Amino acid sequence: EQGGIQAEGALNGFFPLDCITQDIRLAVKGAEVILIVVPAFAHRQVAQSIAPYLREGQIIILNPGRTFGAVEVLKTIEETRHIRSLFVGEVQTLPFTARELEKHKVQIIKIKDSVNFSVYPIKHLNHVYDMIKGIYPQLNPIYNYLEVTLNNIGMILHPALSLFNASAIEFARQFEFYREGATPQVCKVLENIQFELNEIFKTLGIKQFRFNDWVEQVYGVINRSIYSAIHEIKAYRDLYAPEKLINRYFTEDVPTGLVPISSLATFLNVQTPTIDSIIHLSNILCGCNFSEKGRTIKKLGLVKFISQHLIHQGQRDPVLAGGNSKVLNE
Amino acid sequence: EQGGIQAEGALNGFFPLDCITQDIRLAVKGAEVILIVVPAFAHRQVAQSIAPYLREGQIIILNPGRTFGAVEVLKTIEETRHIRSLFVGEVQTLPFTARELEKHKVQIIKIKDSVNFSVYPIKHLNHVYDMIKGIYPQLNPIYNYLEVTLNNIGMILHPALSLFNASAIEFARQFEFYREGATPQVCKVLENIQFELNEIFKTLGIKQFRFNDWVEQVYGVINRSIYSAIHEIKAYRDLYAPEKLINRYFTEDVPTGLVPISSLATFLNVQTPTIDSIIHLSNILCGCNFSEKGRTIKKLGLVKFISQHLIHQGQRDPVLAGGNSKVLNE
Repeated sequence: EQGGIQAEGALNGFFPLDCITQDIRLAVKGAEVILIVVPAFAHRQVAQSIAPYLREGQIIILNPGRTFGAVEVLKTIEETRHIRSLFVGEVQTLPFTARELEKHKVQIIKIKDSVNFSVYPIKHLNHVYDMIKGIYPQLNPIYNYLEVTLNNIGMILHPALSLFNASAIEFARQFEFYREGATPQVCKVLENIQFELNEIFKTLGIKQFRFNDWVEQVYGVINRSIYSAIHEIKAYRDLYAPEKLINRYFTEDVPTGLVPISSLATFLNVQTPTIDSIIHLSNILCGCNFSEKGRTIKKLGLVKFISQHLIHQGQRDPVLAGGNSKVLNE
Repeated sequence: EQGGIQAEGALNGFFPLDCITQDIRLAVKGAEVILIVVPAFAHRQVAQSIAPYLREGQIIILNPGRTFGAVEVLKTIEETRHIRSLFVGEVQTLPFTARELEKHKVQIIKIKDSVNFSVYPIKHLNHVYDMIKGIYPQLNPIYNYLEVTLNNIGMILHPALSLFNASAIEFARQFEFYREGATPQVCKVLENIQFELNEIFKTLGIKQFRFNDWVEQVYGVINRSIYSAIHEIKAYRDLYAPEKLINRYFTEDVPTGLVPISSLATFLNVQTPTIDSIIHLSNILCGCNFSEKGRTIKKLGLVKFISQHLIHQGQRDPVLAGGNSKVLNE
């Protein structure tokens, strides 16, 4: 109705928009860059909706992609159409911390200094980056797609913390999710998830992920354990637990985070008992088989890509070595 | 100091004791029946302590045994001594609901009407029952040891409910364990544990366990789901959550309940993903490898007994059929 967005905070002013519409055809038509800002479990559906209206050369950016978002979007579009040049990238986290104030008003709390960004397939990264660096100067192009898409912090924190607070959330008790929910022994489970993730990264030759390095980089606080790091993050202090048990901490982070990671681990012959336990119990708690509905490397057609990555890394190729070809033959 | 116990409630009066001692030799000496009333994780240690002082013909009753308590006690004693006639039985739950009032005073809240009881090996059941039915008229002798020892209600409820309330317990928040902690979706996990248990029972030819039948039998309330049953049990209403995260709901019910059940399932080729997930996450939460320290059918030397039971039941024998001999060869 106002023809644009009124922003305050880190950005101030009125930003007019050419077209505000619920008609997906109009939204996509003529756009150089299509930003998709939805929970990752909706990526496939959005891709199906826009597929008929896409044109050669358009760029799609998932904001953010979670794990293998760009792959899922590209594959979904290719199921219905062949477009010779279509470019799909993903950012690791939202570049802005913001909240809606009124219908056309937002408060920009913080513009992040640096957000990792990659494209699948990686050969298009330079082209896509050239096209969008003017809009998003804070993007940090990463020439290893796996490094961006597998570093999904939400999936480490959200499902596990929700699980160990499941009764309190379902009982609708108000409590501070991190300050009260992230207790010392519960954080040991987060350390285990990180360990299993790093076993995968080791096999793939990807830089080890340390939650505490990330906290240091973003918040400038040095800590020894995940527990102490979480309790130093000021932005976490006022965050209350979700109001419903079945929420995005499960419905997004399990099927587009833990499930693809677990499928990758199976293919690589890496044991992930903690991740698998959390997936299994989340399935029951939410009454939804995320293991079946979620993203897997087999469903996304990624087996060849991962194998080539391993060969490129000079690592043992589990397919050629016959290590674990179960995923292929299923 | 008083030379006995003062009881009130369902039993009233002063009950003199011949000998009150911390000297295990004196406690065991001359006893016809040795009652062991300790958490099940201490059974092995108590068995080691009493082994040197036992005499032919003595009867040991575990009060209660949890899963495979009698087997563990018998095996532990046989590791150090050979006693030709030694009888070890176990009751399914404590025959009394009671609490200590002062040092020598107890309140007997309820004497249970009927408590299942069995002996390992089963051939001694009649002899043992004849010897103790005078003391415990409420005992109900069951001629299938597995039926008594595998029906361990604590292991269904305690670890799972503690897990989904782990943060609140560790944060030392006071809350009613069942009324607030046993929420509808969390109780779905209990239904899954019961389902997996019954898959094992089906393979063993043992009567299916239904929590709701047990509630109906004990409390006279008919319910459809575990959730509604738990919330009808008056005795559960005032029960507060444990004060510490690492407590008997994990340290007893995992190693002497879920772990032996899971080892049995592995041997029988029955899938128990829910039970296994709870064991794995409990191990991390408690910083203790219950899977390794707990009771398993291999460690207890039960593989032959289970195989014979299967043959007797006319079931397929997984060892002879080569179904899953992993446990044997480990």
